[in-house]
Amino acid sequence: MITLYGTPLSGNTHKVRIALALLGLPWDERLTDAAARQSDAFRALTPMAQIPLYVEGDFSLRDSQAILVLLAARHRPGDWDGRTPEERGEVALWLSHAANEIANGPATLRLARKFGLDIAEEHAAAVTARFLPVIDAHLERRDWLAGGRLTIADMAASPYLALMGDAGIDIAAWPAIHAWTRRIAALPGFPAMPGWPAEGAA
Amino acid sequence: MITLYGTPLSGNTHKVRIALALLGLPWDERLTDAAARQSDAFRALTPMAQIPLYVEGDFSLRDSQAILVLLAARHRPGDWDGRTPEERGEVALWLSHAANEIANGPATLRLARKFGLDIAEEHAAAVTARFLPVIDAHLERRDWLAGGRLTIADMAASPYLALMGDAGIDIAAWPAIHAWTRRIAALPGFPAMPGWPAEGAA
Repeated sequence: MITLYGTPLSGNTHKVRIALALLGLPWDERLTDAAARQSDAFRALTPMAQIPLYVEGDFSLRDSQAILVLLAARHRPGDWDGRTPEERGEVALWLSHAANEIANGPATLRLARKFGLDIAEEHAAAVTARFLPVIDAHLERRDWLAGGRLTIADMAASPYLALMGDAGIDIAAWPAIHAWTRRIAALPGFPAMPGWPAEGAA
Repeated sequence: MITLYGTPLSGNTHKVRIALALLGLPWDERLTDAAARQSDAFRALTPMAQIPLYVEGDFSLRDSQAILVLLAARHRPGDWDGRTPEERGEVALWLSHAANEIANGPATLRLARKFGLDIAEEHAAAVTARFLPVIDAHLERRDWLAGGRLTIADMAASPYLALMGDAGIDIAAWPAIHAWTRRIAALPGFPAMPGWPAEGAA
């Protein structure tokens, strides 16, 4: 059985939930709040106290992008992670953007503005302002980030963009991003997340 | 022919140089300084003006991690990118750390302290201080980051750690990281980089 340590409103946890739900895999979710993340047992498995943490028997893996790569390699190899070497590279590009610009931009802004964390908002706002035009322009010409179909790139990059309303940014100002997040929400089996733009919404 | 746009002292460019050199592939390198990176032609290929940029015929790819994934998938599939789904996930974990903690920690500190860029050093120093113990402890118990052998995880994560002297951090204070960067420098075909700890150096 897969155990997923995370929190209900964590966008990083939701990346993995999307993959597991679309794969139709059962999983057990353990609420891991800030206090639980400081325990020695938890930090032995994930030394930076990151969530989500994926555990299956003796195997554990931290980092939402890494968990998506694992699930793709195991359940949708050559599809969710890219059919060709070029597609694999393009999927990996968006995993890097998810790990860097999205994590340090809209995801950090959301921590400050929705959850009240004391974080340097100015840097996060600058990263966000630099990145949003890049991904919006990319999605103006295609339905999915890489390979012309759903891949783990979409699962990694979408949650904190879908939830940018929580960060005080109007997603409707970014039409291609907005349409793409609704396209993802329309996938059969997509797990609900408060704040995610609904299928068909304007 | 592969064209690699970058600069000689760019650690991100060096990640790709390591892979190309170890693979024995020829490549043409184009010096792409800050001015060249602002040109419309360059930004059409890499909208955030990132280096390195990999170009081969009509295909181009930005982001050093993504280029390593491409090269592994093409030339060392199931080896440099992981033999099993679990190894693929572990390789991807270190690619995320390279894209996030290493880029925003020691790489950013190096930009400030070696190249004089006006960057918030305090945040970069905090990210660095949080991350170095994690990777040093990981390398205390193994020679390579993932899979028990050289993978693209090592190529992605090592340059800015090997060069942390440029960022004002004494690498000798991190013995496992230090030994690992010298192990990488000892690989047959390893391309030279000023400041990288030499094989066998104390």
